Amino acid sequence: MDTDRPALAVDIGGTKLAAGVIEPGGRVVTWEQTPTRRDLDGEQLWRTLDALISRALESAEISRPQSLAGVGCGCGGPMEWPSGVVSPLNIPAWRAFPLRGRLEERFAGLPVRVHNDAICLAAAEHWRGAGQDCSNMLGVVVSTGVGGGLILDGRLIAGASGNAGHIGHVIVEPDTGPRCACGGRGCLEAIARGPAVAAWAQAQGWRPGQPDVSARDLAADAARGDPVGRAALARAGRALGLAITSATLLCDLELIVVGGGLAQAGPLLFDSLHEAVRQYARLPFARGVRVVPAGLGQSAGLVGAAALILQGEQYWSGD
Amino acid sequence: MDTDRPALAVDIGGTKLAAGVIEPGGRVVTWEQTPTRRDLDGEQLWRTLDALISRALESAEISRPQSLAGVGCGCGGPMEWPSGVVSPLNIPAWRAFPLRGRLEERFAGLPVRVHNDAICLAAAEHWRGAGQDCSNMLGVVVSTGVGGGLILDGRLIAGASGNAGHIGHVIVEPDTGPRCACGGRGCLEAIARGPAVAAWAQAQGWRPGQPDVSARDLAADAARGDPVGRAALARAGRALGLAITSATLLCDLELIVVGGGLAQAGPLLFDSLHEAVRQYARLPFARGVRVVPAGLGQSAGLVGAAALILQGEQYWSGD
Repeated sequence: MDTDRPALAVDIGGTKLAAGVIEPGGRVVTWEQTPTRRDLDGEQLWRTLDALISRALESAEISRPQSLAGVGCGCGGPMEWPSGVVSPLNIPAWRAFPLRGRLEERFAGLPVRVHNDAICLAAAEHWRGAGQDCSNMLGVVVSTGVGGGLILDGRLIAGASGNAGHIGHVIVEPDTGPRCACGGRGCLEAIARGPAVAAWAQAQGWRPGQPDVSARDLAADAARGDPVGRAALARAGRALGLAITSATLLCDLELIVVGGGLAQAGPLLFDSLHEAVRQYARLPFARGVRVVPAGLGQSAGLVGAAALILQGEQYWSGD
Repeated sequence: MDTDRPALAVDIGGTKLAAGVIEPGGRVVTWEQTPTRRDLDGEQLWRTLDALISRALESAEISRPQSLAGVGCGCGGPMEWPSGVVSPLNIPAWRAFPLRGRLEERFAGLPVRVHNDAICLAAAEHWRGAGQDCSNMLGVVVSTGVGGGLILDGRLIAGASGNAGHIGHVIVEPDTGPRCACGGRGCLEAIARGPAVAAWAQAQGWRPGQPDVSARDLAADAARGDPVGRAALARAGRALGLAITSATLLCDLELIVVGGGLAQAGPLLFDSLHEAVRQYARLPFARGVRVVPAGLGQSAGLVGAAALILQGEQYWSGD
């Protein structure tokens, strides 16, 4: 890997597409973004991304792809890994879309690497965020879903199919918990994903101020003292704390970094999370585990995607 | 590492001490064992081990330590890792005993490596047992305690303090589960360790045939159809299945290898274990996970200890 050259980074989510140029040291030189339009078909969406990439390269004054070390891309799951054939839950237009292949055609001769967006966030936090100088950490993203990425013994772990770190289906309430979309019951995600938190609050009598119910509104109401909102976030925080404790004990982790929209709720979520960790993570080796909010802001997705290229030895084990 | 030479392997448990000589390919050339006597102090126990090692080397006709590639040792936890200062729960005579240091003095100039015995079992199963050709597996030992070792992306994972794979404290029954010795509640170990299984059965009315209650007797009664015995093992199997499912989803595992005394109960334990995995491991990437009994017999501890030396690149990340 030629670390004198920057990487092109691409971040594909259900809300926005982003592309940027990242220096070998991890600094974002420039970036562009555009909404992920729901009215486009798969090819139209690809052309939108293609144009966005061109704009990002132009604004970084990169005219020759050979000036780049490679292309790193984070995308919502699920995907076949490492082939990068993606079917993002929140982008119905792409089903079995050969994202890595398309990027490889677009950037012939350059390394192109695609990974799950939650895994890219974990890589970013480890490389340039809250997890620097830590060899064993889990990055958790709490948003529409609950995902994550796992760094152990200083490397990003892929697992059998590139899904290691996916904490969302750790079981926290096996008998009495809600059904999960995966087919199981009592998974972390079924309790702590944003829409589930909002739905639980509604079932308990919370009435959102607008028809488009969101966990963000719930968090705002909770911050103003709404007791159901506070209970809903505390319940999600406890579930996160239980799953994080199990992960800490199983993987001997030092640090958990929690990001994603719901993490913005701050102490309303983190107080009960920390309390559950204190209560359950009691073995000496686990007692010192730290749980902190993500340190990088908006740029984390791009920085993590770039890490797949710029720090491939640590963060990429695919072909 | 000179893989032309064999390794000395040492396995230290609460019941017996074993030492053997293992060929570079993993074959056990010769081994010796002796009971772990409870009436000895720490130094006396060390001298017993020292003599046992001499016998093993003699019977392998190894007169010069330089004929060895090194010394690998598995020992019951907890321990400081990688320094190998051990305080095995079941060997009260050794508290903060510098096992690695003592072995290093005994074998000056040779590499000496000490790891948790459950981790050695996982390494053995991966190297020469049920986990060959599998890059992502968890080895689980269900005995007086419940422990394990984790292989991810083809390597043994150490974690922050050498405890990765310790599945015993994954939480399976957070609210209603029994208190655990660790201080938490509803940990896998608090439900599925042999003594807990026997105690639960006694509380439900099972009367053991002899005063020295053991899970082995309970399994024998269950095999003869005792309904409480069967329920006790099924309860342990389900708890194992829940923890194994959480581990599979978090770490993207392909294979779980289950060994230890309680695994001898066979379908009485495994049926409910498999049922829980079927019920909860529903995401596509986890559905294919296999859970199998350990493939190596008595020699697994020695083979795994030898792997720390003979296959150090895969199974040793300490200093």
